Amino acid sequence: MAGDGTDQRALQYEQTLMYGRYTQELGVYAKEEAARLRESGQRRSVSERSRNLDLLEYDKGRCAKCRICTVRCQKFLISRVGEDWIFLILLGLVMALVSWVVDFCIAICLQAQKWMYGGLDSNVFLQYLAWVTYPVVLITFSAGFTQILAPQAVGSGIPEMKTILRGVVLKEYLTFKTFVAKVIGLTCALGSGMPLGKEGPFVHIASLCAALLSKFMSLFGGIYENESRNIEMLAAACAVGVGCCFAAPIGGVLFSIEVTSTFFAVRNYWRGFFAATFSAFIFRVLAVWNKDEETITALFKTNFRLDFPFDLQELPAFAVIGIASGFGGALFVYLNRLIVQFIRNQKAINKFLMKKRLLYPALVTLLVSTLTFPPGFGQFMAGKLTQKEALVTLLDNHTWAKQGIAEEFDFIGNAQAWKHPQVNVFVTLVLFIVMKFWMSALATTIPVPCGAFMPVFVIGAAFGRLVGESMAAWFPDGIHSDGTIYTIVPGGYAVVGAAALSGAVTHTVSTSVIVFELTGQISHILPVMIAVILANAVAQSLQPSLYDSIIRIKKLPYLPELGWGHHEKYNIRVEDIMVRDVRYITLNCCYRDLHNVLLTGHLKTLALVESAESMILLGSIERAQLQSLLSQQLGRPRRLEFIRDRAAAEKKRTSVISNSISEEENRRASQEVRFQISTEESSFSPTRPVPQKPLKPALKRSSVVERPTEIPPNSNDNSGIALKNLFCASPEMEGLEKNNNVECPTSPELRKPSKRVRISVVEPPAILKSFFGDDGDVEDDMTIREIAEWEENQLDEQVNFNNCKIDPAPFQLVERTSLHKTHTIFSLLGLDHAYVTSIGRLIGVVSLKELRKAIEGSVTVKGVKVRPPLASFRDSGTSSSENEATELHKLWDRHKSMSLPREPTSSESEEKSQ
Amino acid sequence: MAGDGTDQRALQYEQTLMYGRYTQELGVYAKEEAARLRESGQRRSVSERSRNLDLLEYDKGRCAKCRICTVRCQKFLISRVGEDWIFLILLGLVMALVSWVVDFCIAICLQAQKWMYGGLDSNVFLQYLAWVTYPVVLITFSAGFTQILAPQAVGSGIPEMKTILRGVVLKEYLTFKTFVAKVIGLTCALGSGMPLGKEGPFVHIASLCAALLSKFMSLFGGIYENESRNIEMLAAACAVGVGCCFAAPIGGVLFSIEVTSTFFAVRNYWRGFFAATFSAFIFRVLAVWNKDEETITALFKTNFRLDFPFDLQELPAFAVIGIASGFGGALFVYLNRLIVQFIRNQKAINKFLMKKRLLYPALVTLLVSTLTFPPGFGQFMAGKLTQKEALVTLLDNHTWAKQGIAEEFDFIGNAQAWKHPQVNVFVTLVLFIVMKFWMSALATTIPVPCGAFMPVFVIGAAFGRLVGESMAAWFPDGIHSDGTIYTIVPGGYAVVGAAALSGAVTHTVSTSVIVFELTGQISHILPVMIAVILANAVAQSLQPSLYDSIIRIKKLPYLPELGWGHHEKYNIRVEDIMVRDVRYITLNCCYRDLHNVLLTGHLKTLALVESAESMILLGSIERAQLQSLLSQQLGRPRRLEFIRDRAAAEKKRTSVISNSISEEENRRASQEVRFQISTEESSFSPTRPVPQKPLKPALKRSSVVERPTEIPPNSNDNSGIALKNLFCASPEMEGLEKNNNVECPTSPELRKPSKRVRISVVEPPAILKSFFGDDGDVEDDMTIREIAEWEENQLDEQVNFNNCKIDPAPFQLVERTSLHKTHTIFSLLGLDHAYVTSIGRLIGVVSLKELRKAIEGSVTVKGVKVRPPLASFRDSGTSSSENEATELHKLWDRHKSMSLPREPTSSESEEKSQ
Repeated sequence: MAGDGTDQRALQYEQTLMYGRYTQELGVYAKEEAARLRESGQRRSVSERSRNLDLLEYDKGRCAKCRICTVRCQKFLISRVGEDWIFLILLGLVMALVSWVVDFCIAICLQAQKWMYGGLDSNVFLQYLAWVTYPVVLITFSAGFTQILAPQAVGSGIPEMKTILRGVVLKEYLTFKTFVAKVIGLTCALGSGMPLGKEGPFVHIASLCAALLSKFMSLFGGIYENESRNIEMLAAACAVGVGCCFAAPIGGVLFSIEVTSTFFAVRNYWRGFFAATFSAFIFRVLAVWNKDEETITALFKTNFRLDFPFDLQELPAFAVIGIASGFGGALFVYLNRLIVQFIRNQKAINKFLMKKRLLYPALVTLLVSTLTFPPGFGQFMAGKLTQKEALVTLLDNHTWAKQGIAEEFDFIGNAQAWKHPQVNVFVTLVLFIVMKFWMSALATTIPVPCGAFMPVFVIGAAFGRLVGESMAAWFPDGIHSDGTIYTIVPGGYAVVGAAALSGAVTHTVSTSVIVFELTGQISHILPVMIAVILANAVAQSLQPSLYDSIIRIKKLPYLPELGWGHHEKYNIRVEDIMVRDVRYITLNCCYRDLHNVLLTGHLKTLALVESAESMILLGSIERAQLQSLLSQQLGRPRRLEFIRDRAAAEKKRTSVISNSISEEENRRASQEVRFQISTEESSFSPTRPVPQKPLKPALKRSSVVERPTEIPPNSNDNSGIALKNLFCASPEMEGLEKNNNVECPTSPELRKPSKRVRISVVEPPAILKSFFGDDGDVEDDMTIREIAEWEENQLDEQVNFNNCKIDPAPFQLVERTSLHKTHTIFSLLGLDHAYVTSIGRLIGVVSLKELRKAIEGSVTVKGVKVRPPLASFRDSGTSSSENEATELHKLWDRHKSMSLPREPTSSESEEKSQ
Repeated sequence: MAGDGTDQRALQYEQTLMYGRYTQELGVYAKEEAARLRESGQRRSVSERSRNLDLLEYDKGRCAKCRICTVRCQKFLISRVGEDWIFLILLGLVMALVSWVVDFCIAICLQAQKWMYGGLDSNVFLQYLAWVTYPVVLITFSAGFTQILAPQAVGSGIPEMKTILRGVVLKEYLTFKTFVAKVIGLTCALGSGMPLGKEGPFVHIASLCAALLSKFMSLFGGIYENESRNIEMLAAACAVGVGCCFAAPIGGVLFSIEVTSTFFAVRNYWRGFFAATFSAFIFRVLAVWNKDEETITALFKTNFRLDFPFDLQELPAFAVIGIASGFGGALFVYLNRLIVQFIRNQKAINKFLMKKRLLYPALVTLLVSTLTFPPGFGQFMAGKLTQKEALVTLLDNHTWAKQGIAEEFDFIGNAQAWKHPQVNVFVTLVLFIVMKFWMSALATTIPVPCGAFMPVFVIGAAFGRLVGESMAAWFPDGIHSDGTIYTIVPGGYAVVGAAALSGAVTHTVSTSVIVFELTGQISHILPVMIAVILANAVAQSLQPSLYDSIIRIKKLPYLPELGWGHHEKYNIRVEDIMVRDVRYITLNCCYRDLHNVLLTGHLKTLALVESAESMILLGSIERAQLQSLLSQQLGRPRRLEFIRDRAAAEKKRTSVISNSISEEENRRASQEVRFQISTEESSFSPTRPVPQKPLKPALKRSSVVERPTEIPPNSNDNSGIALKNLFCASPEMEGLEKNNNVECPTSPELRKPSKRVRISVVEPPAILKSFFGDDGDVEDDMTIREIAEWEENQLDEQVNFNNCKIDPAPFQLVERTSLHKTHTIFSLLGLDHAYVTSIGRLIGVVSLKELRKAIEGSVTVKGVKVRPPLASFRDSGTSSSENEATELHKLWDRHKSMSLPREPTSSESEEKSQ
């Protein structure tokens, strides 16, 4: 018996060898083919070159040297165009121009409004009409224009950029249409004088600009098609956006890092600095050139005293500003979300507004501009000042409320707007803060391109000013005890307040740097830093940042940050949160398994394991790949071929009498058919190139764009019954996707599968017909029952993964990796799922969804929160390593059982005898 | 035959099952054991708790409530101590105090020198002696003290911190001894007045402080033992170091990020800001408290005009400063490295200096202080000014060289040092720059704790001042054309120069922020940014940064950065640089293979594959684990047992007549022995706990500390011949390690294997003897030949990986991953090697060494540089996916051959018939 076994094995070995040879031959063939193609390519390029030389030879008489020179120069230029710094300079230049032009247009718009309002001062009603109509028209136009051209341009853009920089492809957010819509929409929206900002949209515009510039530059060199380079450039573009908006290069870089990145590559640092500095420089030079300024200075230059900027005893007041700003910032984010959710949830309102999309912006604008009408309520809240003017006055060097000498109250220029004959300046400031607060929160929900940074900044400055004026009124001679009088500078408080509130809303520390760059003074560095840090501490413990809040509202696929006090995250392990019931396919599975897996699951990728027993992870395959495999197997050409074969067999049967077909042989036949097909395919590929996508690397971005080509060309063929089941399942799948778009972050693209399939169907049959000349000969005379039967048979065949793109190294984690580390890895590498393995064996999978749940504290967290105390009981050594040993044993025994076959009974008896 | 095959398979399956059961039982046993232990632990804690309650019950009469309250408070406090912000505040506080005390001591030292020098003004020779002796004594003391207490404290510390934050454990760099040595050594070194800085050392001191504080805090809570948290805290500590050194929180954070990190976690950002701000605040408050300052202001406050800081037309001059500083910075780094290498390479000098270690510092100090002796050459280079005074005068608001009104030349206070009756101020400045340049480069090579930032900063300021004074002399009425005269401010140029040169030397952009915070003015932001970026661009293309240069000199295990123009890196793939000849062990290998692999290779970890044919990667095993496996197999206890068994068999043989032993049975016997041992071991573990280390996660830090316990307890037993071979190979291995310490970053620990082994040998025999009561009965009567024979037999056994710690998910890459991405992943995750796989199959390995070679452009790069043009020919689709398909085929056929045995001939004939 042992001898028989050996023979058997030897035969198997031979068989393996043969197959090995067979596939090797295929491989050799492919290599030869590739070599041939390469060679011919080289030959072609050589011949081209020689032709060029001939041409040169021919032209020798004239100016051959000149030509050679120009060709070389051209080549040199093209190679140089690939350099990063040229791209960055271009980007900075373009963005500075855009920023300046937008600012210029906004200024003109605002001047026009003032002129209209000023010219009609004879009649208050006409004045009111002019004051109100102008912004309503502008905002409505902006909303309508954006809606029609590119709805993606609505809003800030920072949340989307955050998502894109995390590695999720939102292609439609980076198109030329969006660029145009964003720029024009933003100009009109800000020109209306509503409390909106340009900073968020500028981040988006800069990214758009970088993406478009990349596309344009790719005409010259190949570097621009590299994806990871483009991501790096987008990160730099975000810095440019903030930098050229505020002329704040350092603050811009830092703000964009804080707002868009989770992990920042320090090697990218210089890109941001370089581009942002250049952009800010050009932006300010344009102002000098336009005679707005004498030289390059800060945008909102202050002039506080340098020798004694503030007293140490004033620090508690700054701390109070910080803490209050923290609460205020959280409130702002909450209010903003509340308004959006209220309008969404009130179905009646929602329905009405959805019908008349431009009504909501118009109504909001009407409300806001009515309230700021200067002769009306606006007189109590400096309504006639534009945002910029208000900021300048708030940062003013002078003290407004000098106690005792109230008459000498010196308001210069625009600052007079804060003065009201009947009402105290404190009341004006309080009213301004309260009104602007809800107005800004409301205005940022309008569907136009707009940011919330600047309005919040102004509110913060007003709050700081309020505290500062109070302090000045309280201590008219300053707090300093030793002789010299240092009066309190309320402008300094305004600076602190502005930084603190904007820091609280955006959850950033770098607003402090922006403030220094905006004001051109850094003397208040410590108060600003303290206030900003306190504001952040308070705000972060209460609410997500404004951008994260929008991400949640928009349900963008993003991973939340680990918060301030996240030390319990170190004790949760992947095994606590992973999904143990992994969908997988085995190497030797049949098409039926594939079909079932595709029907039941809805994951974007599926794990490929060696076998269900060993569970050794070999790689992962995209769902679309499997679908195309299945459709190839069940498709019409395959069936026609079967009919042809059957006809041939029929013919053969008439001449040769066949024996009864055993099941064994039947199986073999099916296998043979498979091979036939694989060869057919290989002879098939040169003419109709199968979408030969390069191997996906281990750390890949989701590639939505390439999807359409992978959709099976013959998927809704009338015969594919099993296939139809599969595709009919897709609406259901779509619903699932909507609920958790983690697993399919590419849902917008996938949501219209029927459409895509329909498109792709038109062509292939024609192609196939032209290819198989004999296709017309075979009649599709199968009945539906026959088809079903045929398909059943087809489904029993083993899957041939030859033409399937497999990701050979999907990301793997160990079950004992901490949640903290998992979060780090996911956000570092931009993963959306990772397999959990133990000595090569697949034991679970973690996706963004599980991770998000565990971090945010929804369902799973209950389970998770119980873990940490238990976790301390977990002896880190025993159970798991034992487990591991067991697994290893199994594997090892599996091997041994194959390599060392022996009689178990004898060894057992010997063991007993011992 | 087919039937036989099925039977065979069924038997094999049963066999597998049995083994499965067997190991499962082991697993169950272990779990039960663990549960028992856990339960008893719980019971114990419960009983403790009840005892506590009893105590409380007992005390009820007195103040039970009070006690309960205090206990609760204590618990609350202890839980709070775990919060990050408490740690950060403590760290900031301690560092501010340290910084202030160090500054205070340095000031006293410098004053003392001045006082001595001033008091002896009657005699120039005595004056000279005092001027020279004082620094020589201080530096010599500093060098000697550091050398004796902790040689790790020498130098800046930033390169080491960079390495540590990359994930390499350099334990001895974070001890209390190092802390003391660094602080005292630094104080003395700076007190000597040599051109040295405190900034680099302060980064190290802050990290030391954080590490020690962590250790201290871990007495209260468990969080402090978490490694990734400690790394985060170290990153924050680096920011604190710079922050409290310059009172520059923002610049500190940014500088520390640029200098120490490759990828920065934005979530860590607030930590750095929080701690650095607090630290800077306390540092400045201490100055106010000490009446040095009236309020909190900048360290080197400037007072430039705000309204017109500089003219647009001055920008070219700033750009020139930037470019020149770039060259200067590169030259400085080169000079510094040249000096070190010169002293190293001159063997005679080196030998002499190694003997008299304190001679070199003394000589250098003598040279430098002689040259700065104020009545001597020092009068031409403001020699009597300390570094701080020099910087203050250089940043001065006034113009020194007013053309035409040279008599009115107003030097106030210290600035008079720059004035020389015979010599022009330009000459003084040039001399200062030139002399200080080489002096600083030389002084930073002295083996004392010292940094180079501050000297470079001062030189940069002097250079800027030089340019500024030249400009002022050239355009006495300023450049501005429109009416008003705005004179040129040379102080502004000094600021720009300081930022540019220090930026060039350190390759950072954030020096600009440090400059603003140091001077308290941000008005020159654009010139500074432009100059710093230009300086960086020039310097980075010429030389590595000073810290990277030191890393290379010290040969620390670090991965170089990708430079500015690294776009060709996108085209190089891992397959171009990977090592294809991977050392691996198979699951069913025998001990001989293990032995051979350990003898030939010298890698820290080895890959574990399923079998040599399939090459499916299952995990990786550390070298030490394998060594301990091997030594267990060949160790004395194992042999004694064998002797015992032999004796038992002898006895048995006398009663039962044995048949001839076939090879088959022989094999079985050996296997049986193995199992016997594995059970013995499991019964063995409860009393003498085998070092049960937790499973290593996929992304691990190298854990040097745990190594000693893994060294086999009986390794230099007189019997282990094969083992001796192995350990004798270790010196050789050590040599290899020295050459490339990438593979063994833990070399300092590993370099004394003989010592460790000797220590570990003393105990085990005793333990073992006490454990095996019958050990004394068995006499070790084997001859050396018998032992060799026995070992030969032992080596033929299959390896049992049961008690071996396997990393089940080592990092994997795909062969087509670009160099750029590989670099990113390596630096992100702190890897030192990664396996290259293709559908689960191991095809290569990439370690830091290969990566470094490819990036830096040594040997491999030649090969690499040829690739990119070739790379374009590589069709991304065909060859590799074909290859992949072939591999898959093989795997799949292997499966099929096992699951579907059939006659190959028939199918072949059928194929032919078709």
